[in-house]
Amino acid sequence: MTDRVVLAYSGGLDTSVAIGWIGEATGAEVIAVAVDVGQGGEDLETVRQRALDCGAVEAYVADAREEFATEYCMPALKTNALYMDAYPLVSAVSRPVIVKHLVKAAKQFNATTVAHGCTGKGNDQVRFEVGIQTLGPDLKCIAPVRDLALTREKAITYAENNDLPIVTTKSNPFSIDQNVWGRAVETGFLEDIWNRPTKDVYDYTDDPTFPPAVDEVTITFDQGVPVAIDGESVTPLEAIEIMNRRAGAQGIGRIDVVEDRLVGIKSREIYEAPGAMALIAAHKELENVTIEREQARFKKTVDQRWTELVYDGQWFSPLKKSLDVFVEDTQKMVNGEVRMDLHGGRATVTGRRSNTSLYDFNLATYDEGDSFDQSYARGFIELFGMSSKVASSRDQRLGL
Amino acid sequence: MTDRVVLAYSGGLDTSVAIGWIGEATGAEVIAVAVDVGQGGEDLETVRQRALDCGAVEAYVADAREEFATEYCMPALKTNALYMDAYPLVSAVSRPVIVKHLVKAAKQFNATTVAHGCTGKGNDQVRFEVGIQTLGPDLKCIAPVRDLALTREKAITYAENNDLPIVTTKSNPFSIDQNVWGRAVETGFLEDIWNRPTKDVYDYTDDPTFPPAVDEVTITFDQGVPVAIDGESVTPLEAIEIMNRRAGAQGIGRIDVVEDRLVGIKSREIYEAPGAMALIAAHKELENVTIEREQARFKKTVDQRWTELVYDGQWFSPLKKSLDVFVEDTQKMVNGEVRMDLHGGRATVTGRRSNTSLYDFNLATYDEGDSFDQSYARGFIELFGMSSKVASSRDQRLGL
Amino acid sequence: MTDRVVLAYSGGLDTSVAIGWIGEATGAEVIAVAVDVGQGGEDLETVRQRALDCGAVEAYVADAREEFATEYCMPALKTNALYMDAYPLVSAVSRPVIVKHLVKAAKQFNATTVAHGCTGKGNDQVRFEVGIQTLGPDLKCIAPVRDLALTREKAITYAENNDLPIVTTKSNPFSIDQNVWGRAVETGFLEDIWNRPTKDVYDYTDDPTFPPAVDEVTITFDQGVPVAIDGESVTPLEAIEIMNRRAGAQGIGRIDVVEDRLVGIKSREIYEAPGAMALIAAHKELENVTIEREQARFKKTVDQRWTELVYDGQWFSPLKKSLDVFVEDTQKMVNGEVRMDLHGGRATVTGRRSNTSLYDFNLATYDEGDSFDQSYARGFIELFGMSSKVASSRDQRLGL
Amino acid sequence: MTDRVVLAYSGGLDTSVAIGWIGEATGAEVIAVAVDVGQGGEDLETVRQRALDCGAVEAYVADAREEFATEYCMPALKTNALYMDAYPLVSAVSRPVIVKHLVKAAKQFNATTVAHGCTGKGNDQVRFEVGIQTLGPDLKCIAPVRDLALTREKAITYAENNDLPIVTTKSNPFSIDQNVWGRAVETGFLEDIWNRPTKDVYDYTDDPTFPPAVDEVTITFDQGVPVAIDGESVTPLEAIEIMNRRAGAQGIGRIDVVEDRLVGIKSREIYEAPGAMALIAAHKELENVTIEREQARFKKTVDQRWTELVYDGQWFSPLKKSLDVFVEDTQKMVNGEVRMDLHGGRATVTGRRSNTSLYDFNLATYDEGDSFDQSYARGFIELFGMSSKVASSRDQRLGL
Repeated sequence: MTDRVVLAYSGGLDTSVAIGWIGEATGAEVIAVAVDVGQGGEDLETVRQRALDCGAVEAYVADAREEFATEYCMPALKTNALYMDAYPLVSAVSRPVIVKHLVKAAKQFNATTVAHGCTGKGNDQVRFEVGIQTLGPDLKCIAPVRDLALTREKAITYAENNDLPIVTTKSNPFSIDQNVWGRAVETGFLEDIWNRPTKDVYDYTDDPTFPPAVDEVTITFDQGVPVAIDGESVTPLEAIEIMNRRAGAQGIGRIDVVEDRLVGIKSREIYEAPGAMALIAAHKELENVTIEREQARFKKTVDQRWTELVYDGQWFSPLKKSLDVFVEDTQKMVNGEVRMDLHGGRATVTGRRSNTSLYDFNLATYDEGDSFDQSYARGFIELFGMSSKVASSRDQRLGL
Repeated sequence: MTDRVVLAYSGGLDTSVAIGWIGEATGAEVIAVAVDVGQGGEDLETVRQRALDCGAVEAYVADAREEFATEYCMPALKTNALYMDAYPLVSAVSRPVIVKHLVKAAKQFNATTVAHGCTGKGNDQVRFEVGIQTLGPDLKCIAPVRDLALTREKAITYAENNDLPIVTTKSNPFSIDQNVWGRAVETGFLEDIWNRPTKDVYDYTDDPTFPPAVDEVTITFDQGVPVAIDGESVTPLEAIEIMNRRAGAQGIGRIDVVEDRLVGIKSREIYEAPGAMALIAAHKELENVTIEREQARFKKTVDQRWTELVYDGQWFSPLKKSLDVFVEDTQKMVNGEVRMDLHGGRATVTGRRSNTSLYDFNLATYDEGDSFDQSYARGFIELFGMSSKVASSRDQRLGL
Repeated sequence: MTDRVVLAYSGGLDTSVAIGWIGEATGAEVIAVAVDVGQGGEDLETVRQRALDCGAVEAYVADAREEFATEYCMPALKTNALYMDAYPLVSAVSRPVIVKHLVKAAKQFNATTVAHGCTGKGNDQVRFEVGIQTLGPDLKCIAPVRDLALTREKAITYAENNDLPIVTTKSNPFSIDQNVWGRAVETGFLEDIWNRPTKDVYDYTDDPTFPPAVDEVTITFDQGVPVAIDGESVTPLEAIEIMNRRAGAQGIGRIDVVEDRLVGIKSREIYEAPGAMALIAAHKELENVTIEREQARFKKTVDQRWTELVYDGQWFSPLKKSLDVFVEDTQKMVNGEVRMDLHGGRATVTGRRSNTSLYDFNLATYDEGDSFDQSYARGFIELFGMSSKVASSRDQRLGL
Repeated sequence: MTDRVVLAYSGGLDTSVAIGWIGEATGAEVIAVAVDVGQGGEDLETVRQRALDCGAVEAYVADAREEFATEYCMPALKTNALYMDAYPLVSAVSRPVIVKHLVKAAKQFNATTVAHGCTGKGNDQVRFEVGIQTLGPDLKCIAPVRDLALTREKAITYAENNDLPIVTTKSNPFSIDQNVWGRAVETGFLEDIWNRPTKDVYDYTDDPTFPPAVDEVTITFDQGVPVAIDGESVTPLEAIEIMNRRAGAQGIGRIDVVEDRLVGIKSREIYEAPGAMALIAAHKELENVTIEREQARFKKTVDQRWTELVYDGQWFSPLKKSLDVFVEDTQKMVNGEVRMDLHGGRATVTGRRSNTSLYDFNLATYDEGDSFDQSYARGFIELFGMSSKVASSRDQRLGL
């Protein structure tokens, strides 16, 4: 039987050419796999037909938007995941859901190999391949752009020679990846890190410099997940989409950062994630109200490690799973409402209320009703500071 | 010889009354200690005279602004210190420098006791007393408001009865603490955490909703410390003051957070720290460019612990000192320039350049000149993912 | 109705006297609560009768040995809990189970207050009171020895004057606490930390200097819990008891450490925990075989925090619970057998086998059958070392 | 000019053959580099002569024992470095000092390439190559056994055909690496992890089952470094050698562990490190006496990361250097004496005394002289437990 390869297919030039290119290089049949994670653009049927027109023997298309929002974006929200305090893991959380469908398609179509269109110096190749190794340890991986030397110039020539139904204009000034959780832009003149991003870099967000009027929004969370916006029930996907639209209109969620890639180099990235950034701001403040101090302090360590793991392509790793159960446990009480002003690039929390709040007015107030017994303070301070005091007494005794 | 008490003196009602109150309660002589950490308001000579007029036997005043900026704010900048990712430790970094002067004054004037005006449910009492225990293990601490039951009502009565030269209008709607690193506001109607802050809460920042034109600024750092702004040399104090003014005019650095106090309760705090927040944003991005990945990842853990320790009043603790030397070592290469747009509540980095940069254009570029050998990727991915792959093979073998 | 106090009752002098002492000091009725956690000594019925004879209005006794072993010792085993790498939390894990019964008894007998016999400078007072605050936030706590100044001298006098059925010989040379997980000894001449422990300090262990013949034992674990010893099924309690006997006969598990107490002082402690230490050694090695590397590395951080929390009396805290679910998740695959030699103070692992092993002979072997592709190494090394290499190139360029 | 390669030369079969093999494969001249790190065996002159006899154009030999002990083993002692709580980094700390000499020799002899004899599945290849990349970013690395397919069989044939002055008996049953810090043994029948190590595995230690009489030793430390043994001044090298002899005679420091290699596989290793393990036991207890609690708790995190980094070949990385300065700062007060019994596989601390001790008898004692004010406890407990109490009140209110 002829060997079969499933190919992560975007519908664009590179992966359209890769269908034939892989066939010629390996003799295998190619099954194109297209997964909708909210990247917009053409509909799945158009993409499916193009794959077949370009020579794929089968085309597997999946609308994974709800799955992506619920099972991949919500965990990132629960961990307030910002790699290097900046990047909301836009591409990093989409790779695993695509991997899941690639492995599913490989089983369905008896493929032995998975192909993706990544280069050899980015993070996504690692996310794809480590994910595939993990979910399908028997599958092989190939990367035509990296392993078969399929450059853009060769792709254009190949497409023209083979009359592929795909536009072959010269490449974009930028390399772009986008989905419902956000949008990533890199390369081109951005590679000079002193250069300021130009307006054409942005697509999900309007210019925050000249915003419309303040947009007040109230988000209701249940166990760390947004379940209503301004009192209207929403799914996780709807919550992200609505906030993308409303926060995007205010220019919220533009990020410009020099980032440490897993492969050991620093790269400059521009991100837009209006919905993600607004939701994280709201979620974080609701955690402040509902999570106990020591739990919150340790959760920061867990959140950081979770974020690094997911950035590093370890979504399906044993540690990631164990961190998930920790995080789930912390979210049980993250219920309530957060009110925010969206305006001019800022998502500002202006109020929070919760049935599971740990904020205790009677303990906190300096007014009447104060139930905090201040006489406890003296003993607390003495013993809390004791070990440092003993150390400094020692140091002073020794003249240090 | 009469016992002597040094009192942390602000010039306000409570501590003015405390001079006499302590004397009556303890029989001791009171030395007032006033430290200028950039809180503004009256000049030190006025404060000194009032202390003497209120009955202090001596008044010790110190302009500690440069010292505070250099030795207390700069370490906070180097650790990008934001407690709960929000609070730039405004009061927390000022307490240790005040403690240092209190202990110095106690030695100079042979005092056995240090007094401060804090209540029994806040963090500052801990910061004062643990600091004093540590720097002066033989000194006793008293807190008239907490230990001697000096309430505001009693203070007003005492001031009027004793004809003290101090205004005794009813208290502010808020409790405020401020210095050059920022301003903290709490209590009053803010204790209802659903209430939105009103305009009168703010003083260091203008309303970001209607900002002036974009203000572009370039900050030069040397070893993590700002040394020039727009090419003009500055001291740390000047850097903070200039950025307070310029970022403040844009409404940058307003913070509204429910915070975990050391004494175990949650409280709602409003902060303004325009200079601190803008400088931290610039510093953080310069670290992204100049610090190696693993060093940066671990530094986040160190930064978090440093921030918790300082919040918790452990400025003079052995661990804090050891974390400091770690941080200093990481800052050796944090040199270069960061360009930012200040506008409408946002301090947005738009460019960075550095002689000590680790960003390597030739490694990062996807254009000509690319020196990154993509053939390494395959072997890297295989071994990087190996341990997870072995685990998932095991799990699949066992049908899990 | 008369106020009621439940008292943690050991049957010894101090708590026997406390029954009457509390009654006289507070006017309340006292309910004695005795919990068997494997401390040995008198049977519960004897203890119950003595409580009643000493004036208790009720006596609540509970054989909590299985509960203690299963719900308190096993979690400590799963985290390999050794405070300061030394102390297996002997008393620290017993306090929560006693607290649980105290709170249960308080509800059953309508008591408003819980009393314990701890002094004011140890950890156990914190463990009792924080536990009680947490499980029964409405309950008050009193500590007669600490709060009512019930010294040992007063206790002896009181017992003699009131003719209590309790031996009033002068106190032990040491303060001792023991249960099935181990035994703790402190005070007396041990307070000079240069002094060597004498033979009379020990009770659970024989002298390791002159051991019997080597004792080979094989322990079978299921999900981190010992379920068989030498092929015979055991409960957690039996596993600990058997290993206490067999490892104790070999002098295993003697510990001598200067320890950081929660109240800020250092104290010198001698522990004996033959069963605990042998089981931890076996469990740890089985984890080495069955847990993936990154999961194992992070679990060390979790284990340390868990251990600190439990040492610090936070058994019932939110963070402790969230760490528990993390740990449980890691233990799913900790199945298999560990063979050990017990001899002369050493529990030495000599073999391990597991159906859930991640040790892969074919990957590990240097003999025939090697399935590890060494060609991956070069690419791995290049990219793994890349970020350090870029940093050192920078440093060398700058002449550093 | 002919290209030159520096070769890490042991004097054994593989690297003797590699001299000619590399020359034939690459056309380069080979400079043999032999570094004495206390591995014993032949003297350096014999090794040098053999290198020249096998065709090396130069031979660089260095007695690096003092340097290794002082600059590589002592940092490992200061961090109590035990990878996976077991492995004292025997080979891991020797690779960097060898790398340093390789790079030095490469500069001295104008070599462009460094060669080592490691295989492609171990940790040492990473340690060599990442170290070389870092210290000499312009140097290339080759690994004849891995890259040039120099198998043992080929080596024997080559040696016989070329009449090399080296014994070519069939390989050892084990693969061994040793230096003054310890000895590592792997492969052979040990690859079955259920197999018990046989007596012939061991060389640095006698059988602990039948030990000589107890050997009492007192070790004096200054800033974390052993400076005297039983009152006699020692260098770090002497300290390790003496303890290797004395602890080795008692069978101390045998380790048998399944270990997570950096390349993603688990392997089974036997180590002997009598001196290292005894010194670490003493050092750790002296830290318990002299380091403040919070500093000690965080140092565990630093120690773990340091140990992982060094295991992973990152000795010369920026993070490793920053961790070093943290550790140095903690060691300033680690001064004093530790008395231990060495006997039958156990190094048991029996006493400690220190001029920089934080153990305060007057605070710790329950006898006369107690200076600890127990009245502080109540307030401490209330506030220490407050945040958990508020959380549990919330949970109970909600019926959870």
